[in-house]
Amino acid sequence: MERYDIAILGTGPAGVSAAITATIRNKKIILIGTADLSAKMTKAHEIQNYPGLPHIKGEDMAAAFKAHLDSMGISITEDRISAVYAMGEYFMLQGGAGMYEASAVILASGVNTSRMLPGEDEYLGRGVSYCATCDAPLYRGKKAIVIGYSEEEESEARFLSEVCEEVLYFPMYKADETENAGLPDAERFGARTRVIAERPVAIEPGETMMNKVVRTEEGNIYKTDGVFVLRQSVAPDKLVPGIKVENNHVAVDRQMATSLPGCFAAGDVTGTPYQYIKSAGEGNVAALSAAAYLDRIRRA
Amino acid sequence: MERYDIAILGTGPAGVSAAITATIRNKKIILIGTADLSAKMTKAHEIQNYPGLPHIKGEDMAAAFKAHLDSMGISITEDRISAVYAMGEYFMLQGGAGMYEASAVILASGVNTSRMLPGEDEYLGRGVSYCATCDAPLYRGKKAIVIGYSEEEESEARFLSEVCEEVLYFPMYKADETENAGLPDAERFGARTRVIAERPVAIEPGETMMNKVVRTEEGNIYKTDGVFVLRQSVAPDKLVPGIKVENNHVAVDRQMATSLPGCFAAGDVTGTPYQYIKSAGEGNVAALSAAAYLDRIRRA
Repeated sequence: MERYDIAILGTGPAGVSAAITATIRNKKIILIGTADLSAKMTKAHEIQNYPGLPHIKGEDMAAAFKAHLDSMGISITEDRISAVYAMGEYFMLQGGAGMYEASAVILASGVNTSRMLPGEDEYLGRGVSYCATCDAPLYRGKKAIVIGYSEEEESEARFLSEVCEEVLYFPMYKADETENAGLPDAERFGARTRVIAERPVAIEPGETMMNKVVRTEEGNIYKTDGVFVLRQSVAPDKLVPGIKVENNHVAVDRQMATSLPGCFAAGDVTGTPYQYIKSAGEGNVAALSAAAYLDRIRRA
Repeated sequence: MERYDIAILGTGPAGVSAAITATIRNKKIILIGTADLSAKMTKAHEIQNYPGLPHIKGEDMAAAFKAHLDSMGISITEDRISAVYAMGEYFMLQGGAGMYEASAVILASGVNTSRMLPGEDEYLGRGVSYCATCDAPLYRGKKAIVIGYSEEEESEARFLSEVCEEVLYFPMYKADETENAGLPDAERFGARTRVIAERPVAIEPGETMMNKVVRTEEGNIYKTDGVFVLRQSVAPDKLVPGIKVENNHVAVDRQMATSLPGCFAAGDVTGTPYQYIKSAGEGNVAALSAAAYLDRIRRA
């Protein structure tokens, strides 16, 4: 497998900044995320405090970042990483589209503003999954529940609907106010998907080790073979087993080093304030620290 | 005296970013520095890794920052601060043009890349000064030496030349390659100033407590009543007595708080990497931390 110098997870301001600086430092990088950059950035009304780009709309900032990447020949690998494993000399990244190897990693995967559901952590890997692409085959011809925290998860429901016998989709956002609100449900969520306008509050054990029950605020229970909890970003210690976390954020030092040698972090994932310019600054520092780390291990 | 919420020292990327974010947070600020922003920035050939402004010349970035400040009605107070004193509830700032008071301070004064001269620290306040405007009256009709680390110090030599009997000016930069190299010496450095093309290596005691001797690499000694060591930025623990310093930089935590409550720092003054985007990111964090500090002390 091709091994990259640095894998950068996330295409918000931190990931973009890290990619630019790592490229200038002649590192072989892979930048993994969504091609339209951070959904949050694109939807921002106006950003007033990114010095040099006064009063810029989110979509214009995303376009400026994209143009900057293009001018340096940096492409985005569209994938979502569900796990990063420290293998000793390198890192193995599990994505929906495949595996990746890199000598260093920069986590710029943003922040998870929604709380975990009771049972989510407990049953992860035993009937609870964060990755439809990875785990759909386990539910072929079975029933699946998707708890989707953003519109982007609707495509995952559609994909599962092609594989599963039945999909129940619980939108954790205002599904009737999004871009696709006008589409017929079958087209939007998948032919075998039923949308349930209730709010899941817990994931509980079912009759077997794998199957589960989802309980809603409205007092109903839904039995299923598996639950997909889909957010744009996964809690950092779920994404990177063994990494030190403080207050739900990756613990970093001033060089943006995490507790795992070779693993750096930048942007919202490292804590407040959640600000574009703070994230971009941290991406730069993380890239330079990763470059210094690579030089050090290669000299050793 | 008018008391500001936040005094921001320095008009490089960190200071500009802090000023923008503090203004958005409705804080009453004073931004102190040079009106043409950081000399280092203006002179940068091309900056490649400030996301959103690809391959921008230093002067164009300075113009973009200036336009951003202007769009928010933020003005620059042209002055150089030679000392910041923590008074308990507020800070007192000593500038060449006067004193300033502020409830919180953000140090964004850049980095001092030149080493201190032997004797500089030891005799500071006893024949060695960092501020011509502050201390010129002490040398009226006497002899002064100016050790100038950048072209900007030439105006200080001119000013001292109006006050002193004689000024010896030691340029620590290539004085014959700068913008003003074509001007006659009297016009450039002052009528009573003599330029000495030698390199000072030490400041030594003279015959009285105040007067001093400057020794040069060339082996000569120059007697004087006082020595002005003028750099664009002063070592942080000289600027802010009592502040904690690590490796010649202000020690800060991830919130950009220094060891002194109410005093924050951002940019090169806090350490490497010396990068525009890192500085701008830190300025943002420092401003938000200062705003939170003000809210906290006002609630108490």
